Amino acid sequence: MDHDMSVQQWVRPEILAMAGYTPGEQPKPGEQVIKLNTNENPYGPPEAVKQAMHAAIHDNLRRYPSPDGYGVREAAARVLGHGLTPEQIILGNGSDDLLTMLLRTFIDPGQVVASMEPTYTLYEALVTIQGGCYRSVPWQPDGGLPLEGLVALQPKLIFVTRPNAPTGHVVPLEQVAALCQAVAQSAVVVLDEAYGDFAEDHGLPLLAAHPNLIITRSASKSLSLAGMRIGIGFMHADVALQMHKVRDSYNVDRVAQAALLAAYENWSDYAPLIARIKQQRQWTTTQLRKRGFEVKDSYGNFVLARVPQGGLDGLQWLESLKKRGILIRYFGSIPQLSEFLRITIGTEEEMALLMTAIDEIMKVA
Amino acid sequence: MDHDMSVQQWVRPEILAMAGYTPGEQPKPGEQVIKLNTNENPYGPPEAVKQAMHAAIHDNLRRYPSPDGYGVREAAARVLGHGLTPEQIILGNGSDDLLTMLLRTFIDPGQVVASMEPTYTLYEALVTIQGGCYRSVPWQPDGGLPLEGLVALQPKLIFVTRPNAPTGHVVPLEQVAALCQAVAQSAVVVLDEAYGDFAEDHGLPLLAAHPNLIITRSASKSLSLAGMRIGIGFMHADVALQMHKVRDSYNVDRVAQAALLAAYENWSDYAPLIARIKQQRQWTTTQLRKRGFEVKDSYGNFVLARVPQGGLDGLQWLESLKKRGILIRYFGSIPQLSEFLRITIGTEEEMALLMTAIDEIMKVA
Repeated sequence: MDHDMSVQQWVRPEILAMAGYTPGEQPKPGEQVIKLNTNENPYGPPEAVKQAMHAAIHDNLRRYPSPDGYGVREAAARVLGHGLTPEQIILGNGSDDLLTMLLRTFIDPGQVVASMEPTYTLYEALVTIQGGCYRSVPWQPDGGLPLEGLVALQPKLIFVTRPNAPTGHVVPLEQVAALCQAVAQSAVVVLDEAYGDFAEDHGLPLLAAHPNLIITRSASKSLSLAGMRIGIGFMHADVALQMHKVRDSYNVDRVAQAALLAAYENWSDYAPLIARIKQQRQWTTTQLRKRGFEVKDSYGNFVLARVPQGGLDGLQWLESLKKRGILIRYFGSIPQLSEFLRITIGTEEEMALLMTAIDEIMKVA
Repeated sequence: MDHDMSVQQWVRPEILAMAGYTPGEQPKPGEQVIKLNTNENPYGPPEAVKQAMHAAIHDNLRRYPSPDGYGVREAAARVLGHGLTPEQIILGNGSDDLLTMLLRTFIDPGQVVASMEPTYTLYEALVTIQGGCYRSVPWQPDGGLPLEGLVALQPKLIFVTRPNAPTGHVVPLEQVAALCQAVAQSAVVVLDEAYGDFAEDHGLPLLAAHPNLIITRSASKSLSLAGMRIGIGFMHADVALQMHKVRDSYNVDRVAQAALLAAYENWSDYAPLIARIKQQRQWTTTQLRKRGFEVKDSYGNFVLARVPQGGLDGLQWLESLKKRGILIRYFGSIPQLSEFLRITIGTEEEMALLMTAIDEIMKVA
């Protein structure tokens, strides 16, 4: 800085020290790429959702939206069932906004937030911003919850990602219930179901028995609305009351609320899209295995693939695919993922082009 | 709760203890009221802005938005001038989101955040959530900054609202510059210009000389986009770099980014709307004074009116107007504002109906 003062004097030390979270690369406007790097839905949202958004573009945009999206929450409770009430539901500006609200509701400086590794790398960044201590333990070799290891950390909040990113595996729900029970006196369990609609089961049935369980979902994956930033949280109504205090007064805009309401009101329109993605996930898994990639079954809209032994390494695969106009995600900074690629499930055509590109790369290498 | 555990065990004490911010009342869908309580623009956004929003409703809503809205920030820098660069600009999900980011960037638990009273009541709630200490000193009797009083609080961050809400007055810019200078070694000054476009001057020319100055603006007032939740922050590029670490990775959605870009690209469309509001502000001030209200000149899109002596009190005015379908804002919990009404400037017709209602109420009382 060109003054005798510097930003160091003003900024919190935690913030100065951190690198900041780096989201997956976004292509520039107009750039033609096959984008398999940020787990977006390959299909656009249903027509009914887009129509509802058009209808929300109106002179009343001059007015604030519903502060708490109560009408949308009523629709969510009705459509999702499981005895949910609107009072148990809270909306976020993306599910990342909900994660931030959760940390601000529960975590004082120095308190421990725990998770399993590998998992969603944003958790650590958010905990650092909140001044908490992020600690993690590895998943069990079979993908199960390391219950004793978690409890030993004496956490105040535990993130359980289900399906997990980037592994794509699901931890058994009874283990989630056992964890809630084990820490009931001391911690909340946040079950992050951003990818939940691509799995075979989910945690909503556990809510009634476990008041320290909080479930977060996203409209960015299964609902094809990443561009609109919508998260949906489910929890005990008393916990929701506290979270509303931390929530920004008007955190979800009018068009986003209209989109989510229409998504719930046209819920069955999503079933064929989700079925197609699951089908493509199976095809992609099989095709990658045929080519020597090691791929475990995934329950998300992505697969995690270990590159074939003796060939290119992970970074080389990333770069070779990028040269061919295909973006995938590579977590080079995480040692145990250095040989893995995370590949979003795209359209049938995109996945076929991916296989062609992989075959070309293997021929050259 | 119906379990042997309770929310108190998990929630931070600061959050449990706070009441939560109450935004101005929102009418239910379909309810016909004259809404003069939350300082919204009485006119809808320009056609060009609405058209750009329609164009953003597209299959690519399945994709995340630009993480940092760089294209919008380029347009803002170009249109606003004052030597601004996009690197000095940061977008928020409403300017409230920017205020939260600022506190999370600069304030550690226990540090002092200062402001003048009366002012925007959200500041105190946000500081409490962050674990900081909120302190305030009264404005000078002439509306000036109480420089010595502020410095004596040893704040880490100071909010200066200009035009101030709910008083509508503007503090002289040279006093803002003097404050930045006085605390340059120890604090940042946040100049909240949510209502800046309704004033005669603003703080952008001060930025180059004061790296500890941060200016926040809102698209909710002058730009008629309260429904879309857009805030715009201006600061030294080095400060912006730190704030980006705290910002949610994708905090402004695609439709909101399209709206703000179109607003800047059609900037001159707003001039006649703002001129009309200023004209109505003058008319309203004159009319209220004629009826015995004490009204200081306002530089926002609202006026603060002291109710006529010897008649109804503030709460009675609020309720009498509400019975006639007119919502205004009354800050009953703030002792020095107990005799004041804050009235948003609406359309010509709405302000005429307000005067008719006031005349009726005065006749009955």
